[in-house]
Amino acid sequence: MTFTRIAVIGLGLLGGSVGLAVRESLPGSSTTGYDADPDVRQRAAERGLVDTVCDTAAEAVAGAELVVFCVPVGAMGAAAAKIAGELSPGAIVTDVGSSKAAVGEALRSALPGATVIPAHPVAGTERSGPDAGFASLFRHRWCILTPPSGTDQAAVARLSAFWEALGANVEIMDAAHHDLVLAVTSHIPHLIAYTIVGTASDLEEVTRGEVIKYSAGGFRDFTRIAASDPVMWRDVFLTNREAVLEMLGRFTEDLTALQRAIRNGDGDALFDLFTRTRDIRRSIVEQGQDDARPDFGRSDH
Amino acid sequence: MTFTRIAVIGLGLLGGSVGLAVRESLPGSSTTGYDADPDVRQRAAERGLVDTVCDTAAEAVAGAELVVFCVPVGAMGAAAAKIAGELSPGAIVTDVGSSKAAVGEALRSALPGATVIPAHPVAGTERSGPDAGFASLFRHRWCILTPPSGTDQAAVARLSAFWEALGANVEIMDAAHHDLVLAVTSHIPHLIAYTIVGTASDLEEVTRGEVIKYSAGGFRDFTRIAASDPVMWRDVFLTNREAVLEMLGRFTEDLTALQRAIRNGDGDALFDLFTRTRDIRRSIVEQGQDDARPDFGRSDH
Repeated sequence: MTFTRIAVIGLGLLGGSVGLAVRESLPGSSTTGYDADPDVRQRAAERGLVDTVCDTAAEAVAGAELVVFCVPVGAMGAAAAKIAGELSPGAIVTDVGSSKAAVGEALRSALPGATVIPAHPVAGTERSGPDAGFASLFRHRWCILTPPSGTDQAAVARLSAFWEALGANVEIMDAAHHDLVLAVTSHIPHLIAYTIVGTASDLEEVTRGEVIKYSAGGFRDFTRIAASDPVMWRDVFLTNREAVLEMLGRFTEDLTALQRAIRNGDGDALFDLFTRTRDIRRSIVEQGQDDARPDFGRSDH
Repeated sequence: MTFTRIAVIGLGLLGGSVGLAVRESLPGSSTTGYDADPDVRQRAAERGLVDTVCDTAAEAVAGAELVVFCVPVGAMGAAAAKIAGELSPGAIVTDVGSSKAAVGEALRSALPGATVIPAHPVAGTERSGPDAGFASLFRHRWCILTPPSGTDQAAVARLSAFWEALGANVEIMDAAHHDLVLAVTSHIPHLIAYTIVGTASDLEEVTRGEVIKYSAGGFRDFTRIAASDPVMWRDVFLTNREAVLEMLGRFTEDLTALQRAIRNGDGDALFDLFTRTRDIRRSIVEQGQDDARPDFGRSDH
């Protein structure tokens, strides 16, 4: 089942973590890698993110049974176009992008005839670049595969086994449904975090120094997410526009209702919501999707 | 300067932490405590949150030089009324509430003639109740005092020294300005977090199970804050209504602009904001107000 040769295109947080995780969990597999930025290639070689850092994408994918695109979702099509005609027969092409319908289309149209199985490991940190990756990033996280109907089931099983070897749990999902689910659990949270951090930075009545000093009241949590890679996130919003706007509409409706409750002094409405929202945290912790310690365990309690 | 006898009214996360911090940092001071809930009083005695748990508030404050109210901000007035006439001459009355103008008025009108210096240690976790407190909660955090003009400066200096002894940095501020600053750095972040968690729970197209499974994409960060004490937060929004609505208006304007940028495919506008918001995270970490490790250090990277 295992892939003997794996090519990683893009050697930032995700690509670097894939390379390191393969070395740790699949010692029988060898990895090649490529990044469009020569500085990133050099740093990737220094850190040993993959076994061989190549100078071109074509060189990296030559002989690979699995090609993993780890570039911003808006750059997938162009990155794939560079290896058109270089793929080994039977190679599986996948990616790690956060929006899936648009990425699937981009990969398929750049690589006609190839076996393309888009994927999204729901894992990451606010860091980016070749120094950010680590081998355990995918452990206990979910990886969603979105094979279009008619995809070779053996290839899907093989890619599933790959992600499971890296420590992830695998789920198969329709690309459109993925994009809706992730709009809620990832894209809207990022959009809101970027917005509130921007709002707080631009106020005249409250200084930037005050915002920083008193951020432990809750604001600092949002700044972590709002420190995420700008190119990656710009592309996510541009490629998952409909689902993001749909979910943003729901959020805004709910926020408006809460605003009215505050204006009217409707304490019961506030209390009801604030009580309901506790359960979901409990379930997330129970299912191992967050740290059970208070405050994410970040302080030395 | 130090207080020999300190009374803590309300023995949840904040009150319990004050008691434990005094024991650790001010061994020359003795503490009494009271909570309206008999179960909380029993648990407080078992954990030794204060030296003596009393059966009435009046008993707790008898002979105290400092009285610290640690109840929800909407309950401050009623809690203070219970000790009217029981305060020792020269006692300083303070609190730990998250809104300050309303609390200051409530305490002053319940305790006419008393030296009331409202305070807000900007610290906490999502836990609440008598098991949640710990001695180091205030270390490296800011505590804001909002003495009204004309307050005895010696009393302000004494209360400042008390909080500094507990590990906090002290800042003096006008109550109205405090309420505006904290609306941005704490109240709006909580309101947004409660809202998005509520929105995600109520969707029909995306199941609750999916929201939980894929929460590591960003959503889980918001669930921590949205697990905070419902009564405390209801009261914060009811007592800091004007500042919260003002800041919510700014946030909504900015969110609407971003929504338009997504609809129009304006990648530059998105990229510009997402780049700007990184700096503030860096400053927060540099100033010791958050963990420098990626992902708050919560994973075992």
